[in-house]
Amino acid sequence: MKKPLILITNDDGFASKGLRVLDEIAQEFGDVVVMAPECNSSGMGHSITTNRPLRVRTIKLSDGLQVFACDGTPVDCVKLATEYFCPRRPDIVLSGINHGSNSSVNVIYSGTMGAVVEATINGFDAVGFSMLNHSDDADFAACIPYIRHIIGKVIEKGLPANVSLNVNFPYLPDSHMKGIRVCREARARWADSFEKRSDPNGRPYYWLTGNFVCDDAVDGTDEWALANGFVSVVPIHPDYTRYDAIPEVNNMLCG
Amino acid sequence: MKKPLILITNDDGFASKGLRVLDEIAQEFGDVVVMAPECNSSGMGHSITTNRPLRVRTIKLSDGLQVFACDGTPVDCVKLATEYFCPRRPDIVLSGINHGSNSSVNVIYSGTMGAVVEATINGFDAVGFSMLNHSDDADFAACIPYIRHIIGKVIEKGLPANVSLNVNFPYLPDSHMKGIRVCREARARWADSFEKRSDPNGRPYYWLTGNFVCDDAVDGTDEWALANGFVSVVPIHPDYTRYDAIPEVNNMLCG
Repeated sequence: MKKPLILITNDDGFASKGLRVLDEIAQEFGDVVVMAPECNSSGMGHSITTNRPLRVRTIKLSDGLQVFACDGTPVDCVKLATEYFCPRRPDIVLSGINHGSNSSVNVIYSGTMGAVVEATINGFDAVGFSMLNHSDDADFAACIPYIRHIIGKVIEKGLPANVSLNVNFPYLPDSHMKGIRVCREARARWADSFEKRSDPNGRPYYWLTGNFVCDDAVDGTDEWALANGFVSVVPIHPDYTRYDAIPEVNNMLCG
Repeated sequence: MKKPLILITNDDGFASKGLRVLDEIAQEFGDVVVMAPECNSSGMGHSITTNRPLRVRTIKLSDGLQVFACDGTPVDCVKLATEYFCPRRPDIVLSGINHGSNSSVNVIYSGTMGAVVEATINGFDAVGFSMLNHSDDADFAACIPYIRHIIGKVIEKGLPANVSLNVNFPYLPDSHMKGIRVCREARARWADSFEKRSDPNGRPYYWLTGNFVCDDAVDGTDEWALANGFVSVVPIHPDYTRYDAIPEVNNMLCG
């Protein structure tokens, strides 16, 4: 039997530590192809590159890992890798490990999760992993057994159709991790989202910043799980439809 | 009573015809602020600009319309306009009219709809309008009465909490438009998504292209509505959670 083929990408760029950790774990399960952005592509969401063509470099990292570095977005990486750079159709697509949270509303801004959703649209089982620590040298050790468990289960059983997983890890030592909670994303938003400054010529410019505001971190949400020491797993899907609002909107516009 | 304040953005850029048409209609309902991207930002999805600050230019167009042109994404425009450039909190956020479809899975790649979803996250009523014609000089006349109707209803009644509208118009003369269908988005994907070429030095590059593949254009979907002469209206929400998969995924990972 052929080994599973695993495609890995991320949004922090091909040289990030989280990507290498994920690659090492994935090697235990099958053959691995890595295609990741040349540059940090955090906040790229589900964007695609339409106004210029893409280039790809093959890079051998110092630890022997070979990666394809693509000058597009994480979604571009999934499209291009599955079409041209994978020797066969991948059995699973993994993204991460992201340096920083993609829980709650962050999923929608996330390049890491954009890649996962793109894989789902194209019929691949896909999982995104993120940890609540932004530092380049974050310690991912406590995540490893959970990632191994989740990859193993997804390869063994497969995910429901059109469903992928958004996995977030609290930044805790192994002994403080309490297990997995499968949950919904908490409603939240980023407030006070720009800081206005003046350049040396007195002209204004605006830096994206902001505070995460969540008044929905109740039991059953990812924010609750993470705040209470659990690994959060949110099943997500690429369908924006709000089904239960169809009758009300119909009545409003056509009634 | 104060007139409603209407914020308008798009992803085709501040000078697009669709934006002007939408602005003209919106003027009938209230005061209008326009902030739109400097450049075409199609395919930007929900991306935000994190690695550099934003600049804004105030531009007076030849027909007297004043717009703010921002060098960020459509989502950036919504954040920045509501925080710094609107004289008060907008009553409604409109995006479009997009030159091209944002039906079905296209909603997830769309900058037009990224702006709408961002507005929803921040508690604004929001509607995105798109027409199934990509040309710069497309004729939007047949859309106008529908846009007027929808804006009027949304201002009068308000949308359900956390719900916005994705409105798409078939490219048909007025007499062939059959009315509004409130529906779900059809499942679809883009196949054969890159074209590989060689540059003059023999090195490869990859252009995003692709064919829209939809085997779900059944009655009740936006693709069906548009193919049958209706204006499609999909209620959407910024929550990726696939609620009905929570028990199955829980059983798979924790059972």
